[in-house]
Amino acid sequence: MIEYRNLRVALLGAGSVGSQVARLLLEQGDEFASRVGAKLELVGIAVRDVDAPRDVDLPRELFTTDASSLILGADIVVELMGGIEPARGYVLEALNSGADVITANKALLATHGPELFEAAEQVGAQLYYEAAVAGAIPIIRPLRDSLAGDRVNRILGIVNGTTNFILDRMDVNGESLQDALATATERGYAEADPTADIGGYDAAQKAAILASLAFHTTVPLDRVYREGITGITTSQVDAAREAGAVIKLLAICERMTDPETGEEGVSARVYPALIDRHHPLAAVHGAHNAVFVQAGAAGDLMFYGAGAGGVETASAVLGDVVSAARRHVVGGPGVAESTHADLPVLDIGRVVTRYQITLDVTDQPGVLASVARILSDGGVSVETMQQSVPSTTGAVVISGNAAIHGAGAPTATLVIGTHEAEEAALAATVEALAASDVVTAISSVLRVEGS
Amino acid sequence: MIEYRNLRVALLGAGSVGSQVARLLLEQGDEFASRVGAKLELVGIAVRDVDAPRDVDLPRELFTTDASSLILGADIVVELMGGIEPARGYVLEALNSGADVITANKALLATHGPELFEAAEQVGAQLYYEAAVAGAIPIIRPLRDSLAGDRVNRILGIVNGTTNFILDRMDVNGESLQDALATATERGYAEADPTADIGGYDAAQKAAILASLAFHTTVPLDRVYREGITGITTSQVDAAREAGAVIKLLAICERMTDPETGEEGVSARVYPALIDRHHPLAAVHGAHNAVFVQAGAAGDLMFYGAGAGGVETASAVLGDVVSAARRHVVGGPGVAESTHADLPVLDIGRVVTRYQITLDVTDQPGVLASVARILSDGGVSVETMQQSVPSTTGAVVISGNAAIHGAGAPTATLVIGTHEAEEAALAATVEALAASDVVTAISSVLRVEGS
Repeated sequence: MIEYRNLRVALLGAGSVGSQVARLLLEQGDEFASRVGAKLELVGIAVRDVDAPRDVDLPRELFTTDASSLILGADIVVELMGGIEPARGYVLEALNSGADVITANKALLATHGPELFEAAEQVGAQLYYEAAVAGAIPIIRPLRDSLAGDRVNRILGIVNGTTNFILDRMDVNGESLQDALATATERGYAEADPTADIGGYDAAQKAAILASLAFHTTVPLDRVYREGITGITTSQVDAAREAGAVIKLLAICERMTDPETGEEGVSARVYPALIDRHHPLAAVHGAHNAVFVQAGAAGDLMFYGAGAGGVETASAVLGDVVSAARRHVVGGPGVAESTHADLPVLDIGRVVTRYQITLDVTDQPGVLASVARILSDGGVSVETMQQSVPSTTGAVVISGNAAIHGAGAPTATLVIGTHEAEEAALAATVEALAASDVVTAISSVLRVEGS
Repeated sequence: MIEYRNLRVALLGAGSVGSQVARLLLEQGDEFASRVGAKLELVGIAVRDVDAPRDVDLPRELFTTDASSLILGADIVVELMGGIEPARGYVLEALNSGADVITANKALLATHGPELFEAAEQVGAQLYYEAAVAGAIPIIRPLRDSLAGDRVNRILGIVNGTTNFILDRMDVNGESLQDALATATERGYAEADPTADIGGYDAAQKAAILASLAFHTTVPLDRVYREGITGITTSQVDAAREAGAVIKLLAICERMTDPETGEEGVSARVYPALIDRHHPLAAVHGAHNAVFVQAGAAGDLMFYGAGAGGVETASAVLGDVVSAARRHVVGGPGVAESTHADLPVLDIGRVVTRYQITLDVTDQPGVLASVARILSDGGVSVETMQQSVPSTTGAVVISGNAAIHGAGAPTATLVIGTHEAEEAALAATVEALAASDVVTAISSVLRVEGS
């Protein structure tokens, strides 16, 4: 019989993830002990209401409302409460007491990450957060350790399951945004207030975390450009499909040269974008997550799996618990979070990207020339220009003559694919198009990513 | 100016991976120093012939033929020579001297892993091998650390790029095995002697490494069942496509109950198998690698990327170098390889799987009943049975009457899909079918995986 040292694990929060973490710690304790060389003793679970109903039947004597006392005696503190306060206070208490902390709290990390990492470094404690991005998918450790000898150039992430589920329903089942959202709510993929998901706020938090880690640079949440999916229409989804593309809400972290200064910088941004059907991310269906990483030496990598779910996310939390426990057994102060590169975070205007612009124009001679001149005056180079009937009547590409639709004046629809240009130039050019006499409506502006 | 400690890195081997590792260490030394908190000094490169031509232009004074002297003064030794000896001797020398060792040597790990891990543990040194499986794709660290709090149930890996390239060409371009192999050789994906790849030996080494790690159990290479792709025909590839499947060479590591004893065991095996077109592994084209992992809590995960290539594999090596260097800076004896579970490794006969059997039968009344009786006597339950014209004339499924082909006796082709059964029972049943009077030929036997 091997004699194990005991490691005291305190759990803060017993929601869908927390209750699964508690269950697995209790059920698989012996196996963890063998892996770690120490027993992981769940010493308590701090909750607001001891009597609240739980997903999992857990021993009542583990529950307490006194988080601070629980933290004080713990070697490892697992924070799964969510939100900024009181989570932030408890995490700081834990780190200051020398405990290692595991958290899945993306909001806390995206807004107070530097403060927490600083506190950890001060006492030689460690802050683990694999579960904060993309649920069960290992992405933090691969970025921090496996790619530590490489240079990450770009990350394209589908990191919000709710929006991917909605966009996938719109694409595969032809549902409207509203219907797809209703389905997502019905199936438990969307919360009663879906703003954090469909507004892109959740994805933006994850983009801040990934960009900070990948580029060794603090990327504050308020420097992450953000657009949600609320403006995405059935017509856009259909038109994308016909063009051999699909619309995905992407969290994009990119190392790039500032086109104004020529200096190296980074960009973090979230928006719905067109992506080619052959891109590996296009095959990510339902509520799944995937993170596509482009690195200088490794080339293209993709990490795919369940981005949410109580038991799935618990897997990532427990991986961190075992890692922290091993560190306690073998010693060593752990690895400090690195922000040595300290690159400038570029405004969205400096980002170089491509646009697909769909607009209605009056059907007169010289219209194409007018549109082309506006684009060229704006410094935007055109890769493709297609004249088509409006997508409501089927986006058949026609050549030459414009289509006539509705009862009003004869108009034609143009779909313009641009070459890469600065976002600011693209946006200004779209404004110039909107102000032009020959343009009657701009029906869709989408960025194109992944190439 | 920060004062860094110097860490001495010795490189053994300067082939396609080694020369890229040396180049990146020299070029990106400052960036690594910031990440690690110490300078990584490449102190020398041991090679057999100092004057041999290299992929990369490297300072001549770094080269030496005296590996042992180089090892003696090193903090970190990177072994990229390949093969068993002298690599094994040098790795042991390095570990015994207390140096951490990074290796990409799958043959060495699959055959002498326990000896090397034991040597590392004795002196508190660490042995890293992320590059040994699936090139640039982080898979060792996710299995060892990220999933340390979960239970891996199954791994399906496309871990040999050469065979995936060949099978993909056969599927997508309709090439024969020979033509596809010739293309692979021409493009540098296959070696002059392709036996290690197409015979499944390379994949078997990787299966032994993955299974040992995932199941905390020593899985010796000689307990890995192995079949290569040399028997795969154009007809099989075509028939698979028509059935909505694709043939992939899979490395399979599975936790399973021994059907004879009822006890938990593990299986590691390599063979070409049918996999549904909708499975994420079916979308892995060309020479890419991917590892699909099923874990108790995390569910399905997939790791995708470049499985080979000098600079790509160098990324994985350097990730390990930086990890080792960080450990030198922060201290701590590292994590010992865990084989505590020590599960029995099951013979291929005990594996529970499914078969697709294609056979020609005489076209007489009662043939179907005879075939069904042989299957049922063998304890094999049939999921689907289709009578079809031979695939050489297009595998059209016909109902009722048998097709007549060739100049010989009238025969019909049957495609039988079985339910899950023990491999031994399936193999014995195939033998009984072959011995039967009504069966004129068995044209294909393939396992079905992924469901």
